[in-house]
Amino acid sequence: MNTQKRIIFFISDSTGITVEKWGHSLLSQFPDIDFQIISLRYVDSLEKIAKTRKQIEVAAKNSGMPPLVFSTLIELPLRAALKTEVAVFLDMFENFLDLLEESLQQKATHVRGSTHRITGQGTYMVRMDAVNFALRNDDGLRTQDYAQAEVILLGVSRSGKTPVCLYLAMQYGIFAANYPLVGEDLQFSLLPALLQGFRQKLFALTIEPQRLQKIRSQRHSGRHYAQIGQCRQEVAQAEELFAVNHLPVLDTSSVSVEEIATQILMQMQLKYVTP
Amino acid sequence: MNTQKRIIFFISDSTGITVEKWGHSLLSQFPDIDFQIISLRYVDSLEKIAKTRKQIEVAAKNSGMPPLVFSTLIELPLRAALKTEVAVFLDMFENFLDLLEESLQQKATHVRGSTHRITGQGTYMVRMDAVNFALRNDDGLRTQDYAQAEVILLGVSRSGKTPVCLYLAMQYGIFAANYPLVGEDLQFSLLPALLQGFRQKLFALTIEPQRLQKIRSQRHSGRHYAQIGQCRQEVAQAEELFAVNHLPVLDTSSVSVEEIATQILMQMQLKYVTP
Repeated sequence: MNTQKRIIFFISDSTGITVEKWGHSLLSQFPDIDFQIISLRYVDSLEKIAKTRKQIEVAAKNSGMPPLVFSTLIELPLRAALKTEVAVFLDMFENFLDLLEESLQQKATHVRGSTHRITGQGTYMVRMDAVNFALRNDDGLRTQDYAQAEVILLGVSRSGKTPVCLYLAMQYGIFAANYPLVGEDLQFSLLPALLQGFRQKLFALTIEPQRLQKIRSQRHSGRHYAQIGQCRQEVAQAEELFAVNHLPVLDTSSVSVEEIATQILMQMQLKYVTP
Repeated sequence: MNTQKRIIFFISDSTGITVEKWGHSLLSQFPDIDFQIISLRYVDSLEKIAKTRKQIEVAAKNSGMPPLVFSTLIELPLRAALKTEVAVFLDMFENFLDLLEESLQQKATHVRGSTHRITGQGTYMVRMDAVNFALRNDDGLRTQDYAQAEVILLGVSRSGKTPVCLYLAMQYGIFAANYPLVGEDLQFSLLPALLQGFRQKLFALTIEPQRLQKIRSQRHSGRHYAQIGQCRQEVAQAEELFAVNHLPVLDTSSVSVEEIATQILMQMQLKYVTP
C-alpha cells in the first residue's frame, strides 16, 4: 500500500472558500486516498504567484508525484504565470466561463473576489442582523421577538438547536429563534403558551436518547440531566408533544448542521439570501 | 434593455451548499445580468429528477430562453435522466472526474452527498465544540477558558468580533474567544491584565468611526454609546492600544465576515478543519 499522501493545492485570489468547497467535494469521491491539502489564499499578485509556483515545483520534486492544483484564480495573467508542467491543473473558471459567455452573450468581467465581498450590502446586512437575532433569541432567553422570527426551533436541551439557528443566520440570513423544552412543557405534552400564536413557524428537532446522553455527558457528566433515563424520558415526552401538535420533526442524531439547516429551508419553504 | 431575468437552476442531490457556492462564484462574473435562481436540494431519486426536468422545460418555454442548469449530481443515472435539450448544463463532476480518476489512478465512488455529512466525526465534533466555545466566550463573558483559545479577538463594542468568532468556529473549528475593550482599558491604552498571558493569541479588529456609529445606532440610537464623538474617541484609543502593544490589526469597515475570518486564519497561521 502506498502510504505517501498525495499533495493537493487549493489556490484562490480571495478567501479560498469557493475553491475549498469545490475541491473537497471532488476529492470526497476518492475516500481511500490520503491527501495532504495546502490551501493558499489571497494569491493576488504576480509576485505571490511566482512564490506559489515554486512551492508547487518543490512539492512535485519531493513527493515524486504531480501535485493536483485546484484553482479559482480569475485574472488571466495570474493563471498563465502559475502553470507548470509538473502539476495537474483543475481550473474552475477556465472550464465553464466560455460556455457561460456564449450562453449569456456577454463577456465575463474577470474581476476577482466578488463572491465573498460585501457587495450586496443589503444581503450582507441581513445575514449579520440574523446572526444578532439568533444570539438574542437563543435558548428561550427572550420571546418578545418571536413575531419577527421566520422559524422557531423546538427541542429538548442539547438537541442541536443553537448551532442550526446560527448556521441559518450566517449562511442564509434567516431569522431563527429557538425554544428549549423543559419541565412542565414536557410533562404535559403541552405546547408552551408563548408559542401558541406561532404554530406555523415551529420546527421540532428530536434526537436518539443515547446520542443526547453522550452530548450532555461531555460537559455535565454525573448530573441527573445527563443520565440515560432522563434523556429517554425527555425525548419521549418531546416526541409526544410534537405528534399531538402535528409539528414537522427532524431527527438530528446523525445529521450535520448543514443538512438540518437545508432541510428546514426546504420543508418550511423559507426565502433566503446567499453569501 | 432586456428586463427579463435569466433563469438559473442549482441542482443538488444533497444540501446544495457546494452547487450554490460554485454557481454564485461563476455568475458573479456577469454582474450586469439579472438572474432568477431556483435552488433545488435533495434531488436524489429518478422521480424527483423527472419533476425537476419538467420544471426546467416549463421555465424554458415560459421565458423563451434556455435556462442554465448548474448540477452537482453524482449518480450517472440521475444525471442522464435530467438532460434536456432546452437547457444549458454545467456539470461540476463531469468536467473534472475523468481528469482526477486518471491522475489519481482510481475510480470515483459516485456515492452522493459525502461533503456535508457527519463523515469525519472527529472533524464535525471539533466544529460543534468550537461553536459552543465561541458562545461561552463571547464578549468577555468569561475569561477562564482563554488558555484553550486559539485566537482572542480584541476590539471596541460592535466592531464585528462575535460573528467572526462564530464563523471561525462553524466553518473551521477554530476555538475563538473575544474581549470587548471598554472603560479603563481604553482610557490608558493598557492591555487588560487578563490578556497579558495570551499576547501571541491576540488579534485586533478596528473600524472606521462613521461605520461604527451607523452600526451602533441601529439598535441604540440616541444613546451616548452611539454618538460619533464617542465612537471616534473609542476607536482612537483602541488603535493606540493596538499600536503600543504591536498587535496585528484588521480594519473591518468594508470587509465581510468571510474575509476577516480567512485573513485571521492566514495571519495567525491557525490550523483548521474544513466542513
